[in-house]
Amino acid sequence: MELGQCEHLLLQRENGFLSIYFDRPHVRNAMNLEMVRELSRVLMAVSESDEIRAVILRGSGGHFCAGGDIKDMAAAADRSRHAEMGADEDPFFELNRAFGDLLCLTDRLPQVVIAVLEGNVLGGGFGLACVSDVALCHVEARFGLPETGLGIPPAQIAPFVVRRIGLTQARYLALTGLRFRGREALRLGLVHRVASDEAGLKAELEAVCEGIRHCGPQANSVTKRLMLQVGQVPLETLLDDAARAFSSCIRGEEGQEGTRAFSQKRKPIWAEPPPSS
Amino acid sequence: MELGQCEHLLLQRENGFLSIYFDRPHVRNAMNLEMVRELSRVLMAVSESDEIRAVILRGSGGHFCAGGDIKDMAAAADRSRHAEMGADEDPFFELNRAFGDLLCLTDRLPQVVIAVLEGNVLGGGFGLACVSDVALCHVEARFGLPETGLGIPPAQIAPFVVRRIGLTQARYLALTGLRFRGREALRLGLVHRVASDEAGLKAELEAVCEGIRHCGPQANSVTKRLMLQVGQVPLETLLDDAARAFSSCIRGEEGQEGTRAFSQKRKPIWAEPPPSS
Amino acid sequence: MELGQCEHLLLQRENGFLSIYFDRPHVRNAMNLEMVRELSRVLMAVSESDEIRAVILRGSGGHFCAGGDIKDMAAAADRSRHAEMGADEDPFFELNRAFGDLLCLTDRLPQVVIAVLEGNVLGGGFGLACVSDVALCHVEARFGLPETGLGIPPAQIAPFVVRRIGLTQARYLALTGLRFRGREALRLGLVHRVASDEAGLKAELEAVCEGIRHCGPQANSVTKRLMLQVGQVPLETLLDDAARAFSSCIRGEEGQEGTRAFSQKRKPIWAEPPPSS
Repeated sequence: MELGQCEHLLLQRENGFLSIYFDRPHVRNAMNLEMVRELSRVLMAVSESDEIRAVILRGSGGHFCAGGDIKDMAAAADRSRHAEMGADEDPFFELNRAFGDLLCLTDRLPQVVIAVLEGNVLGGGFGLACVSDVALCHVEARFGLPETGLGIPPAQIAPFVVRRIGLTQARYLALTGLRFRGREALRLGLVHRVASDEAGLKAELEAVCEGIRHCGPQANSVTKRLMLQVGQVPLETLLDDAARAFSSCIRGEEGQEGTRAFSQKRKPIWAEPPPSS
Repeated sequence: MELGQCEHLLLQRENGFLSIYFDRPHVRNAMNLEMVRELSRVLMAVSESDEIRAVILRGSGGHFCAGGDIKDMAAAADRSRHAEMGADEDPFFELNRAFGDLLCLTDRLPQVVIAVLEGNVLGGGFGLACVSDVALCHVEARFGLPETGLGIPPAQIAPFVVRRIGLTQARYLALTGLRFRGREALRLGLVHRVASDEAGLKAELEAVCEGIRHCGPQANSVTKRLMLQVGQVPLETLLDDAARAFSSCIRGEEGQEGTRAFSQKRKPIWAEPPPSS
Repeated sequence: MELGQCEHLLLQRENGFLSIYFDRPHVRNAMNLEMVRELSRVLMAVSESDEIRAVILRGSGGHFCAGGDIKDMAAAADRSRHAEMGADEDPFFELNRAFGDLLCLTDRLPQVVIAVLEGNVLGGGFGLACVSDVALCHVEARFGLPETGLGIPPAQIAPFVVRRIGLTQARYLALTGLRFRGREALRLGLVHRVASDEAGLKAELEAVCEGIRHCGPQANSVTKRLMLQVGQVPLETLLDDAARAFSSCIRGEEGQEGTRAFSQKRKPIWAEPPPSS
């Protein structure tokens, strides 16, 4: 798998786990269009690869992501004013919608997506947290939807926030602009685990990676696909699809190895520690 | 904006916030058809006005609302028995369905809806709490769905209760009739904040109004509309709609003022304290 | 009502409450196809009877249910290999899908379904807990979705797990295989009450049965049907349906008795303690 060069992301691969650092620390990793495009390109490559079983999203310099880059929006406004484009083009629409595509792509990635949340997790950063399979956070992380305070809606992230924490909490947070910390994020179901310091956050990440290592990568991918379909297709259709997937998996390589390992009271082959090199 | 005369409601306006008190304290503000009609009429007027940015629903005399007025139902039964109506009419259907329309209207109000919950919050009162954007409660408030104990279903409120606290809690509460207090309401996600006394409740209300004052009223209205569409329209359609709304807001008066104020590190104009008069 | 003979279930009837014990303690009540069929047959009979107002699901020998019986799956594999069937048949599909039908049947049972959770509540056992109206658990009960560790997806249960605890928690638990205990089950909204010992669990069960006894059985059945339709039919359709159900119930025997008893400040007839015999 070739991931190409990135200007705004730092990539680290280790034994099937790919860490992606948002790397614009001078603006608390606020996302500009270029960063959205780079991340989309990397995740697209990952989605087609079987070398990676999990992706870890995090930020450089102590912050996850402070949201969309306001300067980037000003540039879009300039393009808009200076009419570099045809009458049908709308740079604000394109900018915003591209981020929605990135959220969809992240949400549906066949691999497990882990978000490690520290510092600012605001606006678009909040949205990215909402499409992770596993969200770990520092107790002092700062969460919120500040958009309406700027006179704009949390637009692309709205569906993902509502799905993540429910309509009740989503409408409250967006319409009041209130900020909150890690323990409240846990209580709201936004994150799964909260750590009281950096060492604790590291330990939580290791524990969850260890858990993922014990799960069949193919079974995980099928499970994630099935779960994302809930509410999108009729129940009977989904149950039929699920039974076919079950049959296919249990007859397949992973299912045979997994059930055999279970009977033999040993770890399946995919859970073996990687060879020390 | 003209709100007309009300017999069963008390109205107070202050700087864009409209307080509506349910005012039938002799029956713990149980709702009769007349009160449902008055509240519907007031909210309809509010929805078409840009003078109000938030509505505060609360009850007179220490209770929010004890549900539907059983005497009103008996009167419906009388009308039914004495055949004042044609064969197609069903006063129970009309009575019940009118309350469902009120719930829909409240839910979709373009303005922020705050519920201040004290004393009894039962049946239909519970339903009204479920369509608020912000729910604050007193720790001793009493919540529950007593309908099945009367041999009737919590009918119009069922969809809103399920959406608010999830099917798991909704079926449990309705099928067992159990009552609970403020802290449990917080744990279930029915309310957002719980106060241990009246002063605390007042302080929570002031804090949330202050938060709302910092949000662009138009941006809030657009955000609420988008969030209510989640799960009602296909995701791609919603994301396109959201991107158009984003573009429209950021080019509009509020978006320009909001982003400018952010760059200038000042409050946007809509967050200025009201002129002392 | 005739419930027939069961090999893998123990049945106890008392005053309208039917206790069903999963009775394969040598395998921690892991479900084989035969047990699925017996339970389906019993619940089908119950659904057509008005002698039972609630069903209590629990396990013999200190465990609720450890999931699907792996040996039963091996037998399915044998049947598959030895070609006892036509080319179109797929014993894994049938085995898996039959369990999905059981989950649907349990979910929609007109009576209240109570799950009493102790020991292992894994895989398919977890799925059954997810379709209960009331879930009570022992603080030391062990919950988890171990399927992906075997290289297979939690297939039929996926929709019910997502609906029960939300997508956020469901994807996390399934993709990491993590186990948890009773208090976390309460926090996740999987169960309604957690008891710190067996006596406490018994007391919780008695309290919830007492609550159910005060609810009109017909009103409960209508309420459950309405709540299960939320999100499945358009809101306006559901509200119309609900208003018709309300009118029908309040005119009916239960509604008349219930509202009369309320006015007379006495218990309705269905809440009377059973005659001592």
